[in-house]
Amino acid sequence: MRVLGVDPGLTRCGIGAVEGRPGAPLKLVAVGVVRTSADDELGARLVGIERGIEQWLDEVRPDAVAVERVFAQHNVRTVMGTAQAAGIALLCASRRGLPVALHTPSEVKAAITGSGTADKKQIGTMVTRLLRLAEMPKPADAADALALAICHVWRGGSQNRLAEALAKASRGRAS
Amino acid sequence: MRVLGVDPGLTRCGIGAVEGRPGAPLKLVAVGVVRTSADDELGARLVGIERGIEQWLDEVRPDAVAVERVFAQHNVRTVMGTAQAAGIALLCASRRGLPVALHTPSEVKAAITGSGTADKKQIGTMVTRLLRLAEMPKPADAADALALAICHVWRGGSQNRLAEALAKASRGRAS
Repeated sequence: MRVLGVDPGLTRCGIGAVEGRPGAPLKLVAVGVVRTSADDELGARLVGIERGIEQWLDEVRPDAVAVERVFAQHNVRTVMGTAQAAGIALLCASRRGLPVALHTPSEVKAAITGSGTADKKQIGTMVTRLLRLAEMPKPADAADALALAICHVWRGGSQNRLAEALAKASRGRAS
Repeated sequence: MRVLGVDPGLTRCGIGAVEGRPGAPLKLVAVGVVRTSADDELGARLVGIERGIEQWLDEVRPDAVAVERVFAQHNVRTVMGTAQAAGIALLCASRRGLPVALHTPSEVKAAITGSGTADKKQIGTMVTRLLRLAEMPKPADAADALALAICHVWRGGSQNRLAEALAKASRGRAS
């Protein structure tokens, strides 16, 4: 299963793609950042994010996309832009018919480090270890996007199996 | 000047298009709503909003788009969806190279009724009067979108003239 993780942001969208399945070693596919300039108008920045994410989707060809769930309680100054960047990522993935999952920051932290309150450095360290990288991916947004993708491989896998089993059971009842 | 106003929302996006210029009678061009079902996944709903707004842009062919500015302090339960719907509207307009403006609810209320704290009914009444309609546009989201478009015709016009004058002055200095 190949997962593209998106850590949304208006100035920097972290992008990280990972291949793997629960219980097997993970493989780094790609990592990077989509940037837009604070000097540009909001509309132009959203167009830039759409273009960037489309390019990554073309390149990575993921089976699923995982986006960080944004909460209204977060940093009020930047939360609207973050929500809009997340919306563009959801839009791009859904337009291609790709399954999309939202994971909260604490779900990701707990999946990767065992603690829902782990800090950025701990996330970076575990991502580096789990993907057997020579050094920590930078910036932190890119490492966070990889953590999201790993979280989805591990959690999303079981969620999908459950969803598939339920769908199968429901088809069984219907026939 | 033909303006498409968008009152963003995940369940209902109000759409209202108006033609006019400051100091002249206004004309209703079109009014309606883009709806998505709360039963659908978030990604599918955003795709539905994109499709709906694209259809309105194709039909109305506006010179500018006005979107209500969403604040993080608004209704926390719905604000993220509202922000994402607003982001899609900005994206669609900017992709076509259309100028986009954000107006706050109180700017719109003050422009239409003279009071920044006017209620929905007062907005609806003034929209009906200003566009010389037989009855109040429904739902309220559609009336709000028309109010936004009217606000933009009146405010946006002068903002544009100021921006043009500044751009001209700056070109003058550069040459």
